[in-house]
Amino acid sequence: MSTVRVSTPGGSYPIHIEAGRLERLADSIPHDATAIAIVTNRTVAAHYGERARRALAQTGLRVILIELPDGEAYKDWQTLNLIFDALLQNRFDRRSVLLALGGGVVGDVCGFAAATYMRGIRFVQAPTTLLAQVDSSVGGKTAVNHPLGKNMVGAFYQPVAVDIDTDVLNTLPPREISAGLAEVIKYGLIIDAEFFAWCEQNVAALRALEPAAMTYAIRRSCELKALVVSQDERETGLRAILNFGHTFGHAIEAGLGFGTWLHGEAVGCGMVQAAELSAATLGLSSDSVDRVRNLVEAIGCPTQAPDLGAARWIDLMQVDKKTEAGQLRFILLPRIGQAVFQSVPAAALQAVLGKTVVPSL
Amino acid sequence: MSTVRVSTPGGSYPIHIEAGRLERLADSIPHDATAIAIVTNRTVAAHYGERARRALAQTGLRVILIELPDGEAYKDWQTLNLIFDALLQNRFDRRSVLLALGGGVVGDVCGFAAATYMRGIRFVQAPTTLLAQVDSSVGGKTAVNHPLGKNMVGAFYQPVAVDIDTDVLNTLPPREISAGLAEVIKYGLIIDAEFFAWCEQNVAALRALEPAAMTYAIRRSCELKALVVSQDERETGLRAILNFGHTFGHAIEAGLGFGTWLHGEAVGCGMVQAAELSAATLGLSSDSVDRVRNLVEAIGCPTQAPDLGAARWIDLMQVDKKTEAGQLRFILLPRIGQAVFQSVPAAALQAVLGKTVVPSL
Repeated sequence: MSTVRVSTPGGSYPIHIEAGRLERLADSIPHDATAIAIVTNRTVAAHYGERARRALAQTGLRVILIELPDGEAYKDWQTLNLIFDALLQNRFDRRSVLLALGGGVVGDVCGFAAATYMRGIRFVQAPTTLLAQVDSSVGGKTAVNHPLGKNMVGAFYQPVAVDIDTDVLNTLPPREISAGLAEVIKYGLIIDAEFFAWCEQNVAALRALEPAAMTYAIRRSCELKALVVSQDERETGLRAILNFGHTFGHAIEAGLGFGTWLHGEAVGCGMVQAAELSAATLGLSSDSVDRVRNLVEAIGCPTQAPDLGAARWIDLMQVDKKTEAGQLRFILLPRIGQAVFQSVPAAALQAVLGKTVVPSL
Repeated sequence: MSTVRVSTPGGSYPIHIEAGRLERLADSIPHDATAIAIVTNRTVAAHYGERARRALAQTGLRVILIELPDGEAYKDWQTLNLIFDALLQNRFDRRSVLLALGGGVVGDVCGFAAATYMRGIRFVQAPTTLLAQVDSSVGGKTAVNHPLGKNMVGAFYQPVAVDIDTDVLNTLPPREISAGLAEVIKYGLIIDAEFFAWCEQNVAALRALEPAAMTYAIRRSCELKALVVSQDERETGLRAILNFGHTFGHAIEAGLGFGTWLHGEAVGCGMVQAAELSAATLGLSSDSVDRVRNLVEAIGCPTQAPDLGAARWIDLMQVDKKTEAGQLRFILLPRIGQAVFQSVPAAALQAVLGKTVVPSL
């Protein structure tokens, strides 16, 4: 088993990475817990709900299972409220513990429920998608969407543990693997050029879910994310670099309707756009832009963005949480392995949209 | 001007108490703010909305006003969402600031909106009811109600400042003054016997809104609350004593429908019930119980509880956040000026309900 440690003002906790980790979930439940709710969705419950329940029953505590509807379209208040209803109906108290068993949507909604139920109870992340394992389950960002913007309502709230079972990737659709790999290569792009090169060399092994390669990619991603959020839990500075590709990506998701493209797919495409914008404003080499585009393509993500109309693109990007005083700001790469956060001239942005957007959808 | 300081892990901030403080609200807005939203309700807006807007306009920032429906019945997700809608439509960013101008409901809902909009923005409390001035605006408890329980969804989230204008009490209905005084005498009961005696001696001056008496009562209440929350922000121990009378009070509010009795009225009655329970289990003297009942009556709050049915009483109290593993726990008084937190025998509780509940409503 690999263990990566995350330390933030909001809490310090371990990330356990191992094959078969779901069998050992009981190890992550605090000793003074009074009851456990597994929060999951229908799809994940069918695969792993019973296994998680059996593992948690070893604590001797009452374990209930809360099934949410499946998909980004349900990452909203109504779904959150299903959790509150179940917790209140089952008289869950302040020492109860939630376990988020699922992908990013389950983790974000369950985490926000934990952050706000009775003003905060403890929760464990057990991510079952690659994207959640390498990104959303680590660092304490929780949220639901609002009709006017993604992740607009939420909290920074850390789990007490993250349990990553690498075996679960075997039941993931290939599209989900591709989406997760987009966040993996993101870490290389923003902070670790050597890891980016390693991803280029091992892309076939990663897409084939070769265990050694995949375990290394997950561990390195978690280490890099832990490094960043340990320095800046509440995204007042450094942490913003983790959003590389996300301003474009969020516009794609919102413009097409959440759930049309997977989050990781939108981020993959967004990273190509952000690389182009880096070339136009910071002189990132065209060779580096090509490496970004080629690797995004090699992991199986789209590299050409949908045509939402230029005005709507700008409009959608302005809802981004990184906007300040109406000024659009982007994470950009002076070179591969290094990221900066700055505003850009409108003309450069327009040119990049012209270059990266497919004219007719 | 009196200033009381609150220091918690979640933030350190001043409470300013003075006549005419609303004119100087601009002093409490952080220098790097990008925009301000006054969150208030229709009733308060009619009295003080324009005054607050003019005062805040001195910052040179954009100021918008968000009007919520008035009353505890609207302390819910729908009302919270009115705030999110307005903030997003007006492109409020992470450096925007909210100002809660109103009573406990406005403060709790606005505070929870601040805690969760874009995962947390800054907010200022400008409480306009006595109850909010001496209790809910201080200490960072924010929440909305759930159909199955009061304040079940919320966060511990501290304001950057609390601005108390004692002049606003002149427009408050007498019933609201009585409700606020219930929380004032609570501080005496749980932590400061001398202050309780002072309240007994000055009850006429307080009900007449005599400025010197009222200013002292507010300042002393804020000092005592600050003392408690500075030691235990997240209510893991000591802070629970602030809920003296509240387990009974919450049951009354939920049982009759939120908003039928004012929160302070329910707490006033609940303190009489909790005093009776203290006599039955901890030997609080009958003379002390009489002093509690007499002062609750003298401030104008009810001392006899509504008949919700014994089973429903117990049921409603069990939803209380202080319940652990199904065990009802109460804040009790060994003597006036000292509080403890413990579970009680069911028989004692039944006896007290039999004694304090009006047989037919």
